[in-house]
Amino acid sequence: MLQANGAMSKKKGKDQIGLEKQLKEDYEEFKKTRTFRYPRWLYGPPKGRLLELEVEDCPRFGEHAYLEMDSARTAFLSVDMQRDFCGPKGYVDVMGYDLRLTSAPIAPIASVFQVLRKMTDMKIVHTREGHASDLSDAPYNKLLRSKVIGNGVGIGDVPPKGVGRLLVRGEPNWEIVDALKPQKGEPVVDKPTKGAFATSPLEQVLRDLDIAYLVIGGVTTDVCVHSVMREANDRGLWCVLLKDCAAATDRGNHLAAVKQIKMSGGIFGWVSDSKTFIEAVKRAF
Amino acid sequence: MLQANGAMSKKKGKDQIGLEKQLKEDYEEFKKTRTFRYPRWLYGPPKGRLLELEVEDCPRFGEHAYLEMDSARTAFLSVDMQRDFCGPKGYVDVMGYDLRLTSAPIAPIASVFQVLRKMTDMKIVHTREGHASDLSDAPYNKLLRSKVIGNGVGIGDVPPKGVGRLLVRGEPNWEIVDALKPQKGEPVVDKPTKGAFATSPLEQVLRDLDIAYLVIGGVTTDVCVHSVMREANDRGLWCVLLKDCAAATDRGNHLAAVKQIKMSGGIFGWVSDSKTFIEAVKRAF
Amino acid sequence: MLQANGAMSKKKGKDQIGLEKQLKEDYEEFKKTRTFRYPRWLYGPPKGRLLELEVEDCPRFGEHAYLEMDSARTAFLSVDMQRDFCGPKGYVDVMGYDLRLTSAPIAPIASVFQVLRKMTDMKIVHTREGHASDLSDAPYNKLLRSKVIGNGVGIGDVPPKGVGRLLVRGEPNWEIVDALKPQKGEPVVDKPTKGAFATSPLEQVLRDLDIAYLVIGGVTTDVCVHSVMREANDRGLWCVLLKDCAAATDRGNHLAAVKQIKMSGGIFGWVSDSKTFIEAVKRAF
Amino acid sequence: MLQANGAMSKKKGKDQIGLEKQLKEDYEEFKKTRTFRYPRWLYGPPKGRLLELEVEDCPRFGEHAYLEMDSARTAFLSVDMQRDFCGPKGYVDVMGYDLRLTSAPIAPIASVFQVLRKMTDMKIVHTREGHASDLSDAPYNKLLRSKVIGNGVGIGDVPPKGVGRLLVRGEPNWEIVDALKPQKGEPVVDKPTKGAFATSPLEQVLRDLDIAYLVIGGVTTDVCVHSVMREANDRGLWCVLLKDCAAATDRGNHLAAVKQIKMSGGIFGWVSDSKTFIEAVKRAF
Repeated sequence: MLQANGAMSKKKGKDQIGLEKQLKEDYEEFKKTRTFRYPRWLYGPPKGRLLELEVEDCPRFGEHAYLEMDSARTAFLSVDMQRDFCGPKGYVDVMGYDLRLTSAPIAPIASVFQVLRKMTDMKIVHTREGHASDLSDAPYNKLLRSKVIGNGVGIGDVPPKGVGRLLVRGEPNWEIVDALKPQKGEPVVDKPTKGAFATSPLEQVLRDLDIAYLVIGGVTTDVCVHSVMREANDRGLWCVLLKDCAAATDRGNHLAAVKQIKMSGGIFGWVSDSKTFIEAVKRAF
Repeated sequence: MLQANGAMSKKKGKDQIGLEKQLKEDYEEFKKTRTFRYPRWLYGPPKGRLLELEVEDCPRFGEHAYLEMDSARTAFLSVDMQRDFCGPKGYVDVMGYDLRLTSAPIAPIASVFQVLRKMTDMKIVHTREGHASDLSDAPYNKLLRSKVIGNGVGIGDVPPKGVGRLLVRGEPNWEIVDALKPQKGEPVVDKPTKGAFATSPLEQVLRDLDIAYLVIGGVTTDVCVHSVMREANDRGLWCVLLKDCAAATDRGNHLAAVKQIKMSGGIFGWVSDSKTFIEAVKRAF
Repeated sequence: MLQANGAMSKKKGKDQIGLEKQLKEDYEEFKKTRTFRYPRWLYGPPKGRLLELEVEDCPRFGEHAYLEMDSARTAFLSVDMQRDFCGPKGYVDVMGYDLRLTSAPIAPIASVFQVLRKMTDMKIVHTREGHASDLSDAPYNKLLRSKVIGNGVGIGDVPPKGVGRLLVRGEPNWEIVDALKPQKGEPVVDKPTKGAFATSPLEQVLRDLDIAYLVIGGVTTDVCVHSVMREANDRGLWCVLLKDCAAATDRGNHLAAVKQIKMSGGIFGWVSDSKTFIEAVKRAF
Repeated sequence: MLQANGAMSKKKGKDQIGLEKQLKEDYEEFKKTRTFRYPRWLYGPPKGRLLELEVEDCPRFGEHAYLEMDSARTAFLSVDMQRDFCGPKGYVDVMGYDLRLTSAPIAPIASVFQVLRKMTDMKIVHTREGHASDLSDAPYNKLLRSKVIGNGVGIGDVPPKGVGRLLVRGEPNWEIVDALKPQKGEPVVDKPTKGAFATSPLEQVLRDLDIAYLVIGGVTTDVCVHSVMREANDRGLWCVLLKDCAAATDRGNHLAAVKQIKMSGGIFGWVSDSKTFIEAVKRAF
């Protein structure tokens, strides 16, 4: 008897042997082509175009490989590109962090949006971090820590030079920056957490679009972007971070977060950049 | 009307004013004492002893602060201290990583266990990463990537010098290392993922013990330890990583993962070490 | 070794023996007093007043028992009391169901609100079912089935006699009915599903309030009320349905849903009614 | 701007218009053929054979319709067919419920298994309810209620005529009944709850198999079967209960649970029976 979750025998079942054979085939294909092929045997024939995206430091640092993706099963996920994190007079600006760091991804994400919107059937999904006006969805220790680090001005407060209550839904500072404004037909998912899957309909939104591949950008790399990517990867989505489409409040943390993804052959997925991704899109469309 | 999840008015409700007043009081208390007090107003009187744990680089790098915890609401979570990750002939060893890195936390965790088991009412909870024998709970891309990085030997395979199938439940290499063997009455939670909250009963196990504070150790710092800590922090648990009780396959990744926790006044919780924690326990008991 | 999730030995651990002893004590107490006592050993001393609520058909049909609750750890959860389900020109009305059935709980819930708001420290939390304007958070089969049963008018459509798009957030028909309007300080949680815990911050909202007891009303008994109660009960919350505070579009379904809760000594929690609850509140305050 | 979770404008986006057009087309197709077509536009071409399953009382009581399913995207989910619920000397037997009721689904499920295993590419997945030996994954109120209703013999206890500890993993009474023993390659998922999605890897197991359609049987209809079906339906899976493959400890509760599914055109999915399902399978294969 085989068990998904418990003690187990060592006998191998029919499906397991099928799975092993498939794994072996796909591994042999990788050795020949350095490509993680779109798995037709799993998802069926592609519904859109097949992209071949070059990914870096894969499977080992200094090497490169290719990820084959079905465009119609791919979404670009833009994480928390809100004024609070990367715009003037938002949380990051007011708190004294260097806005040049977290606003750097705006241009590359905009260039990705432009290509995807004009040429492809690939989806764009946005997330926003923010709390209810009464802060009822914020853990108390999150509130208290933000108060302490902000010298008395934390989540829910209007800072001296601010334009609204920090990280509160509906405030001007909570809006997605103008350059990356969601267009009609692009879902926007609100979440009160760093991750998104446990507290928002994000998983359902992706399932409604039949998404298997997630190309990810946003801020900040080591916090919300990483949390969301970890959750998505744990759920079996094929995740790629476009490293120039993400940034942190600390350059070292950004670089470390990118490196952490690449460990063990891609422990949380793959890493590429906007230029490489756009080229792959243009080759396919 | 106030809303937890949706559009909102800017009017403040009764509870919100109460919350703001409480936040302000607790912030003033922090300024005076540098202590994040156990919130009696939230959880009621402590059920156990109050610990004062010194935490480092808080709220800013170079500073320190104290976290007050109710021992009876605290668990030490030991993440994936399995032979596969830190013991001889396990996954990490066979794959050629430096076992000295990931086995380093064994001694400090053992010293924490000893003190908690002998002197306190604090709970110990263990997790294990592992898959069903038929690998039915493993995403296909996780399997394929492990095959690729292992040159054909991945999750579910028995490596040349190995003692069982890698990362498969019930195999000798999957067991928790002898030095940290769970004792009677210490829950052990199995999970097929890097995180634990979405795919295992961990959340229920913690709730059944009325846990509000999570002191965390285990391997590896940047992967499973971080994923679990992020999930717990998103759920409002007060999380502390004991940095010498955790390790990564890469020293730089460990250090970066520790630093990432400390950003913004403790974006994922707090950081301390086993010696400081044991001293705090001994002062209280 | 004991395990939360996997193979297990038959040896009993320290905590387990403690748990067994506690269970036995609490069972003996129940035999003497017919009361499920508030578990001080688990949550600590009560923070509010202790209520003794009579619950019906417990543990067996025809018998009654008492549930002891800490008022400060109790919330009344009002599920989906929206115009779409119980008000004029909402979904239920337009579709031709008998509005008298689903609007019947308005008066009893209002009477509960009045007492809780005036006299107690008990919390009130509201939920609303609704979809994003672009319907991106609605499964396709949910949309199609609603179209079919509505003869072409389903979720997202404006019906002939309607006042807005059915079950879409922000529309007049989606608002909570006037008689039960949320007051300042009462969290309102939006959910796109029948249940609430997997797709909204409800769990966090309850945790932020330190809720252990959930008194439940709303519509409809067999659909959203039951789904939410099942999810809450699975998570260990002590749940009580006030049966006159809930209703279905079919009287038989309401009665069956109430009976299902009572099976096996309370498989999903307990059942009482608004009058009995209000009396219990008044005795305590 | 469109939003998945928050305030919204009334403008309709590109995708939404596409969705509306598709909904309209599929609704027109339903009117002509009474068939809920497999949505090629969503999942792509079928990977297996297309089945046409007649479903009852759909969209209205007294009517019937057809659900078109891709066999390769379909799993039969057998819920908790354990000795504890439907075998001799298990929980239900020992507690004095009528074993004839809950064992009735064994034969029909066995006949479904036989056809699926011999003729098709459809998957079979099993669940088991059970607790860790130390009961650490069981909410305290679940334990106490089972003690009370069992006159002192509840979950974790060995009843006088029993063969092991009730509802504890690894005990003989917890095993799936012999007639429905899982075969090699059929995942078995353990869960400590009535539902399964929040506390087990079930969702991942289904995703690894690319399942969109769930044909459901098991015990008991109004408890675990309903909880799992509600969770799956909330996640967008196309769910069908085979009514003779399910049973409750009370005949009225079974009938009510079946009726509840059919409300509003199929609020939790569809209902059919084993004979009709087997015929549909045989027509396709």
